[in-house]
Amino acid sequence: MRKNTPLDGITVIDLTQIYQGPYATFLMAKAGANVIKIEPVNGEPSRIRAKVSGSASLPMAMLNTNKRGITLNLKTESGRNLFKEMVKRADIVVENFAPGVMDRLGVGWSVLHEINPRLIYGSGTGYGLSGPDRDNLAMDVTIQASSGMMSVTGMPDGPPMRAGASIVDFLSGVHLYAGIMTALYERSQTGEGRLVEVAMQDTAYPTLASNLGFTYRGSGALPPRVGNRHGGLALAPYNVYEAKDGHIAVVCVTEPHWNKMLAAMGREDLKDDPRFSTNKARVENLAHTDEVVQQWARSRTRDELIAASKQHGFPAAPVRNLIEVMNDPHMHARGMLEWFEDQDLGRVVLPGSPLMIHGADRVTTVSSPKLGQHNQEIYGEWLGLSDASIETLKQEGTI
Amino acid sequence: MRKNTPLDGITVIDLTQIYQGPYATFLMAKAGANVIKIEPVNGEPSRIRAKVSGSASLPMAMLNTNKRGITLNLKTESGRNLFKEMVKRADIVVENFAPGVMDRLGVGWSVLHEINPRLIYGSGTGYGLSGPDRDNLAMDVTIQASSGMMSVTGMPDGPPMRAGASIVDFLSGVHLYAGIMTALYERSQTGEGRLVEVAMQDTAYPTLASNLGFTYRGSGALPPRVGNRHGGLALAPYNVYEAKDGHIAVVCVTEPHWNKMLAAMGREDLKDDPRFSTNKARVENLAHTDEVVQQWARSRTRDELIAASKQHGFPAAPVRNLIEVMNDPHMHARGMLEWFEDQDLGRVVLPGSPLMIHGADRVTTVSSPKLGQHNQEIYGEWLGLSDASIETLKQEGTI
Repeated sequence: MRKNTPLDGITVIDLTQIYQGPYATFLMAKAGANVIKIEPVNGEPSRIRAKVSGSASLPMAMLNTNKRGITLNLKTESGRNLFKEMVKRADIVVENFAPGVMDRLGVGWSVLHEINPRLIYGSGTGYGLSGPDRDNLAMDVTIQASSGMMSVTGMPDGPPMRAGASIVDFLSGVHLYAGIMTALYERSQTGEGRLVEVAMQDTAYPTLASNLGFTYRGSGALPPRVGNRHGGLALAPYNVYEAKDGHIAVVCVTEPHWNKMLAAMGREDLKDDPRFSTNKARVENLAHTDEVVQQWARSRTRDELIAASKQHGFPAAPVRNLIEVMNDPHMHARGMLEWFEDQDLGRVVLPGSPLMIHGADRVTTVSSPKLGQHNQEIYGEWLGLSDASIETLKQEGTI
Repeated sequence: MRKNTPLDGITVIDLTQIYQGPYATFLMAKAGANVIKIEPVNGEPSRIRAKVSGSASLPMAMLNTNKRGITLNLKTESGRNLFKEMVKRADIVVENFAPGVMDRLGVGWSVLHEINPRLIYGSGTGYGLSGPDRDNLAMDVTIQASSGMMSVTGMPDGPPMRAGASIVDFLSGVHLYAGIMTALYERSQTGEGRLVEVAMQDTAYPTLASNLGFTYRGSGALPPRVGNRHGGLALAPYNVYEAKDGHIAVVCVTEPHWNKMLAAMGREDLKDDPRFSTNKARVENLAHTDEVVQQWARSRTRDELIAASKQHGFPAAPVRNLIEVMNDPHMHARGMLEWFEDQDLGRVVLPGSPLMIHGADRVTTVSSPKLGQHNQEIYGEWLGLSDASIETLKQEGTI
């Protein structure tokens, strides 16, 4: 009997590390797949980073819930044989090693596809499996640089700036999940697996649509860094303003938004002022426009400003810090965030899947595994190895 | 006979606008789905923004290739009836209106599900379909604020900063695609469609894993803004450095990276210097470490620095501007970018899908449609309306 989760019955062999790959398999686990996380015998880099023996840092705890964890040394013959046994029984393999690593180990796509033609193989890399930059070393920060993202972030008189979140790791991680799901659907029609490839740099490109549009329109001119103003300097107000006790972001997309804002500010006297009467005029008088809003913002608390924006109906939001976000009543109410007792960290806030599939059963959260926690379950119960064989594999350093 | 593309045979009714939804359906079109883009009779906001009659801006041209375009007024009874006729014949409906809009029009999930139980319905919103903040107005910039992303971007002594790319729009757009693919696979097993919901704010949360980890570890302390340094101030070097003619991003993840960097800089004299001999020491001497790298960087061009990083083998990348990125030989070589003759804009660079499915046929790029370009094809040939009926619908303002 099928469980009422989208990926019930799907088995995932998960070789991924850090953020990109683990986020892809996190989404699978939360959709009901059976995800087996394989780590080197010393743990994956995220676990090592945590530097607390046997425990996991918050990112590790966040991204590996609902996965079972085993250890495996793919550099040994017996390790590779175990891996192939698992691949025979699996639907999906995911890895985010550098290009060529799996091939050099003798367990690349072509080998695994022969063992299991229904297998879907997902590869996440920095620059992709082809092209002259394929072998460049990549991390979130270097791709933020090479992709052009940094060039449009920061103040006009400052240096190019990194976004503080690991946006490229996660953007490419969800693309990797998306590509694998596409191939999984295709397999339901054809019976054949695919190699699915996602490069971090490729996934960053579309996000620059507005900025690239500026470059195009300017027939070769580059968009400037604009701080918190609109990327194309084409909308006003569009900025972050200082409140008495913090900051708010405000944007007027339509003229009604501006009129509502004037009402909220008690500045209906400006309604027919030619400096502000159209978006075009406000952009031409950008500094003035920002000053009008800034004056109002500075005289109120953040919460008062947001309450006014809701009452009058124009888009605004508080700039929230991470403690506020972790405790956000809205995300807790809708089940995106939950308080959870992690087996290593104790009580922490963990995210669910942003993919909300109505009518499907929610997968109850299970703690991120300890290193090798499920070796017995996977090698013994699933693969059917004897206790003695498992002991030998341990002794040899294979698991 | 099935075409060799993953989504061959899948029909998508696409009501989406701007970036979030159109990116989701762009990925579908590029995977071989039959995507029918429905716009209000005056065009969707992206088209209106372009403000050049009958033409499209670059974002419009980028995100709507391989879709056919029709006009439809959902505010009329006859418009809704046409819509329902299409839904009967479709696999997927996608929209990114504010919560409740489709229900108020009388064509929400529950109505459409009854008409076509196999239909998958994808909803993209700012805050989701449930929870106390559901009806807050949302744009990329306000979600960057409310999600906490801004709070960790920018200089320590500066204001919270927006990432210059529309990262939340696209991050949530690919999540929307991913959720729909998940439901499409599930339907292949169960025969039933689902309502799939993605909220921009939910998708931003996981990207803050490193920063949230800092908050957790500091038992309530907030991560500072760190400019281009490591979010947790736990890795060095990790920064953007000024070259003679631009900037580069550099990160040393392992000790071998640092030793290779010393070789590249000709500073093997520092190999045993206790200020730099471990990552911990380098973090303790952060300003000194950065100064060593900065001295080297300032004396060379960006290309010389990158060449040295490749030769010696540590992660680095140029901070590239958007003209460089558009012309990137690597992304062009691997088929992620192509020169294309858009029917409105002429010769432009367009992206393909970052979801590279090896062995599948590539979908040949077809220009983003003009407003209503395929009305005859869809209403006449697909739905079978007579020329006279189509003319009447035009006269009434229904299409």
